[in-house]
Amino acid sequence: MNYDRRARLVAALGQRGLDGAVITTLVNVRYLTGFTGSNGALLVPREGPAVFFTDGRYRDQAAEELPDVEHVIARDLVAALAERVHEGVWGVETHELSVDDHARLAELVPGASLVTVDRAVEGLRVVKDEVEIDHLRSACEISTFALAGLLEGPLVGRTEREVARDLENRMLDLGAEAIAFETILAAGDNSAIPHHSPTDRILKTGDLMKADFGARVAGYHADCTRTVVLGRADDWQREVYAAVKESQAAGLDLLRDGVAIADSDAAARGSLEASGWLEAFTTGLGHGVGLEIHEDPFIAARNTGKLVSRTVLTMEPGIYVPGRGGVRIEDTAIVTTGAPEVLTTMTKDLMEIG
Amino acid sequence: MNYDRRARLVAALGQRGLDGAVITTLVNVRYLTGFTGSNGALLVPREGPAVFFTDGRYRDQAAEELPDVEHVIARDLVAALAERVHEGVWGVETHELSVDDHARLAELVPGASLVTVDRAVEGLRVVKDEVEIDHLRSACEISTFALAGLLEGPLVGRTEREVARDLENRMLDLGAEAIAFETILAAGDNSAIPHHSPTDRILKTGDLMKADFGARVAGYHADCTRTVVLGRADDWQREVYAAVKESQAAGLDLLRDGVAIADSDAAARGSLEASGWLEAFTTGLGHGVGLEIHEDPFIAARNTGKLVSRTVLTMEPGIYVPGRGGVRIEDTAIVTTGAPEVLTTMTKDLMEIG
Repeated sequence: MNYDRRARLVAALGQRGLDGAVITTLVNVRYLTGFTGSNGALLVPREGPAVFFTDGRYRDQAAEELPDVEHVIARDLVAALAERVHEGVWGVETHELSVDDHARLAELVPGASLVTVDRAVEGLRVVKDEVEIDHLRSACEISTFALAGLLEGPLVGRTEREVARDLENRMLDLGAEAIAFETILAAGDNSAIPHHSPTDRILKTGDLMKADFGARVAGYHADCTRTVVLGRADDWQREVYAAVKESQAAGLDLLRDGVAIADSDAAARGSLEASGWLEAFTTGLGHGVGLEIHEDPFIAARNTGKLVSRTVLTMEPGIYVPGRGGVRIEDTAIVTTGAPEVLTTMTKDLMEIG
Repeated sequence: MNYDRRARLVAALGQRGLDGAVITTLVNVRYLTGFTGSNGALLVPREGPAVFFTDGRYRDQAAEELPDVEHVIARDLVAALAERVHEGVWGVETHELSVDDHARLAELVPGASLVTVDRAVEGLRVVKDEVEIDHLRSACEISTFALAGLLEGPLVGRTEREVARDLENRMLDLGAEAIAFETILAAGDNSAIPHHSPTDRILKTGDLMKADFGARVAGYHADCTRTVVLGRADDWQREVYAAVKESQAAGLDLLRDGVAIADSDAAARGSLEASGWLEAFTTGLGHGVGLEIHEDPFIAARNTGKLVSRTVLTMEPGIYVPGRGGVRIEDTAIVTTGAPEVLTTMTKDLMEIG
């Protein structure tokens, strides 16, 4: 699998007229090799085998995780990379590589020309393979199972912090290797804050409770948001919830192969405009998800790309009214030629809990 | 406090002959402003007030966390920064800033000369102020309390993963905002792996159990390692433990104001050499700790610096024998003019548990 990925990168390098690539973005190194440590780099020449670089802490781990790739153990990865970069035109990850490391590499290999590799690996990562989809499916299953258990309650009377930890522990109990990101658990007027860190605020009857959370499995992230009402919803809560639900369905429906990303953005945004709530929507509508919680592609009006099957994306419109409350509904879904396959399979009907 | 820190940076800019600095490393932005969000930048001109930049998600949070600093809300922080960089010589964080962002900034402000700010903020962060020491003290107290509770047992019969989660939950129960890093909990031969991720291996009588863990409080990280024997230690375990304990004490004792960092490295390393175990030590000996779990200064033979009071550092020698087991002992401590103040106050005598 990793070998196939490297072969696809080599093909992409050929199209760009590059003699090879120096991959220094850790998550891209992981994608191409399976290496899970915290320090590594990969040299991918257009001709010949790839070479992996890490430090002494990961000698044994590299031998186990990358049995098919030569690895070089070095304290100074830039210097070690430089010894293997021969003359020619090499792609480097200028979107992540620091100015200092770039300057050192250029100085150490004066015969090579370093040009941008232009997010080539991020480009490969957009379309997920079977192994990746399996991990994402597991992560999303764990996430929604955990939330279903949490919603059995009790919730009222506990703090945001306690409820967030409960949800996280449920994901870990169900087999998550870690949580995908710090859980957003926001109740009452705190639900109006798009990215709220849980506090000691106590959940009360009548609150909106927004949970934005996910499990991580084998490095792959789930991303799910549900908003419920504790007790019976009032008219305002019903109106806002219905507007978000409709917008989310409209945007989600356009996560289809061949659709312009700007069109799926416009569908969700247009729905909010029609219901009169567009000004209360202040975040992005969605993003790719995989080895990173936020990765290419990003759903935005200015994105000129088209969707491709097997891309995994979120769709997450919301309405946020400062001082009053907010609602967000978010799924992780796979783009197909028909309706997207939603991985975070839990009802999006308004839930009134307890 | 944040204002004082910015004033110290302005003084450092003056010494470097810079007209200002563009701070794009998020943790440095936090240090200088108190901003805890995930996207921000700070312009610090030598003359006049600083300006903070973030995106729309953090509008309210920025107003709350940085009431004393002008803030600019923008989707494209580089473009927004460029509008405020006037002519002159500006320091940029070339050790973190990407090649692409640097090139865009340079293109957008052709009248300015961009030079390296040379880790100026990291330099300020080495010496901790009162607020920082308070947070580090809390984080270390929580960590050692949590471990003391865990060691009351039972441990034998549980998996590494279960025990790691128990330890993490204890830290969160005691008030940690998060764990400082993914807990290393390694038993038996897994203890020989310096950075081991907890598995389903069951803890057995006779195992060495190594726990490398910490709590995070207000962004500040604790870092502590203890290794215990489950049941009665055998002669080999006693010998290895004694060698690590002696090395750790020797290195720790030299974390004093005015001592060359290479000398504290040599003290710990020399002790391992004297006991015949130096070859089984394969990691670094210690690092600064604060807003990052690993930050300046790093303890190494090649480090030419001297220690300064109020620097907070770890000292963490170990012996790792593949297939057999390993021991590491690690404290977080404050450099003073006398003996260092150890924050992770828990016995380093060999503990035989259960």
